[in-house]
Amino acid sequence: MRRVLQLRALRARAGGGLTAVDDRTERHVLGLIERVKAKPLRFRDDQITMAHGAGGKATMALIEGLLAPAFGIEELSDAGEVGELAFTTDSFVVKPIRFPGGSIGELAVNGTVNDLAVAGARPLALALSLILEEGLRAADLRFEVEAMASAAEAAGVRIVAGDTKVVERGHCDSMYITTTGIGRIDPRASLSPSSLQPGDRVLVSGPIGEHGMAIMLARGEFELEASVESDTRSLWPAVDALLDAAGDSVRCIRDATRGGVASVVNELARASAVAVVVREADVPVQPAVVGACEILGIDAMYVANEGTLVAFVAPEAAAGALAALRSVPGFEKAAEIGAVKTEPPGLVLVDTAFGGRRIMDLLVGDPLPRIC
Amino acid sequence: MRRVLQLRALRARAGGGLTAVDDRTERHVLGLIERVKAKPLRFRDDQITMAHGAGGKATMALIEGLLAPAFGIEELSDAGEVGELAFTTDSFVVKPIRFPGGSIGELAVNGTVNDLAVAGARPLALALSLILEEGLRAADLRFEVEAMASAAEAAGVRIVAGDTKVVERGHCDSMYITTTGIGRIDPRASLSPSSLQPGDRVLVSGPIGEHGMAIMLARGEFELEASVESDTRSLWPAVDALLDAAGDSVRCIRDATRGGVASVVNELARASAVAVVVREADVPVQPAVVGACEILGIDAMYVANEGTLVAFVAPEAAAGALAALRSVPGFEKAAEIGAVKTEPPGLVLVDTAFGGRRIMDLLVGDPLPRIC
Repeated sequence: MRRVLQLRALRARAGGGLTAVDDRTERHVLGLIERVKAKPLRFRDDQITMAHGAGGKATMALIEGLLAPAFGIEELSDAGEVGELAFTTDSFVVKPIRFPGGSIGELAVNGTVNDLAVAGARPLALALSLILEEGLRAADLRFEVEAMASAAEAAGVRIVAGDTKVVERGHCDSMYITTTGIGRIDPRASLSPSSLQPGDRVLVSGPIGEHGMAIMLARGEFELEASVESDTRSLWPAVDALLDAAGDSVRCIRDATRGGVASVVNELARASAVAVVVREADVPVQPAVVGACEILGIDAMYVANEGTLVAFVAPEAAAGALAALRSVPGFEKAAEIGAVKTEPPGLVLVDTAFGGRRIMDLLVGDPLPRIC
Repeated sequence: MRRVLQLRALRARAGGGLTAVDDRTERHVLGLIERVKAKPLRFRDDQITMAHGAGGKATMALIEGLLAPAFGIEELSDAGEVGELAFTTDSFVVKPIRFPGGSIGELAVNGTVNDLAVAGARPLALALSLILEEGLRAADLRFEVEAMASAAEAAGVRIVAGDTKVVERGHCDSMYITTTGIGRIDPRASLSPSSLQPGDRVLVSGPIGEHGMAIMLARGEFELEASVESDTRSLWPAVDALLDAAGDSVRCIRDATRGGVASVVNELARASAVAVVVREADVPVQPAVVGACEILGIDAMYVANEGTLVAFVAPEAAAGALAALRSVPGFEKAAEIGAVKTEPPGLVLVDTAFGGRRIMDLLVGDPLPRIC
């Protein structure tokens, strides 16, 4: 029984974390990372802050420094395994609960389905638990229940267990949903975060940053109007196509949720002790997202997705894998965006559109709380 | 794949629901119940109230009228099944998070372990998802993490997956925990809520009402002091002993949580269309619980337990089952408290200590919100 703790999109540093780097800087940063890797992070805070839920270094410290040792968990990944089954859980506290392109109910189903999918497991069944706020309008609850039912049907999973609790007005925001999924580990999959090899190609399944930007705009805090919809959807068809086309040449897959593409690429570069070079010009991103990011001063690579994966594929299988991905409806804009290198291990570098090279580092702060 | 929705301890009416009954009343009530059974409850409310989380008729209407039809779930039970595995989920929002005899972390592990156990499944693995309040003291989090780890070890389950979210100060109460469990269905078990037969005996595994009363006293609202501790614990050893002693003569087992013993007995009487007569004088209950109940004007039969089960056993196997139960440490005070009858189907009657007979009805209101 392999035991893991979910670490979706940990390890990112706020958009400003892109810094020029030369060889000397690389060696210096490398030294720091090696020291960090040598000992797990410690949880030293006196109290919980929003950063502990943001998927950054504080979250990692909470998990590596408290939860994983207490529960005797050694490997940190997206889904635990029980025999041939994968098992994953996720609470959803997104605010607002409805946003362009989706809502908390749809997100709660797809988020857990996707954690199974990127672990190489065909989603089978879901349990869902509702914490409802006293005074929640029945119409709003109906809407989310129908959204969950539709998303489950679209993803081919059945809802087999449930629970409902109610808390007093003001003690949650409309509703929090926890979904737990069981999937059957696909025999075609041999995925591991530590299996990246120099030469591997990096694929992304579609345009990035749409979910996080849709939530940010839906909150209305920025008085910015742009037509961006969440990309929430099941990733199993994309994973299925990848495994069919490339089988065990697919090294690892991640859904790029909290912390965005930058975070999952960093996570895997560290886990495999390899470098990854991303070609900024090849990363698909909608003009509306680019525009909103520029105005807000953030980098789309750090903005959350809820229906977009990053896959590392052996070089000889990459072209076939990309073609297979593009043949799946909804994933036509998949792209190869980079490659794995030997040096400097644990670092992600970006070749910018202007010909420069920067480090794409980990997030420390909390750029966007409660996007899922 | 059998699909069910958790209905722990639904169907109870507030403590006052004990009414004298004669034959004519029985027939009248029976007629009402038959009409109720003919059509599932409808969910007609405009908004969510605390009653929807209380395990009473409002909860049942929410489940039967909205959730079960939306998710295409036919049978309502404690745990869903996926192949040979049982699967159950539960959110814990207990207030306060620490109370005499336990805390939310211990409760979250034992509650889900017990849902598996009473479904006849040996608990194997848990996923846990934390929603933490910004500002939560790290010491309080550490305490609960250690409580979860200890309870999991005591119950023989492994924690294999997890998730953490943080919400702003005031948007939850310290922490909410959702645990989801996987268990292996025990081949000795053939349990069903509709399998009760006239003549079956009703066993209870120990003194009742302790958890709910401990929470009530811990809130300090009643300015009442009494030494009552929660009974939170794993029920698997008790279920294991029952199945070993009585095998398929064990008809059905329930843990008597929200709504207490009264609610689970009512649930099963309805599901099997039988009557159940409970002998009040034989129900084990601590003097401190009796005293507190008298002062507060509530009936211990409706007060929640978190480590107490009710089992229905065929008459020939009942004595052996009771002896087996009593041989398990912590369950020495198990007792036979009643028997199944033919008439009036769907009703629970209580033979009082004073020689009378009353209906022990379903709860409608919310006697004690947020006890788990």
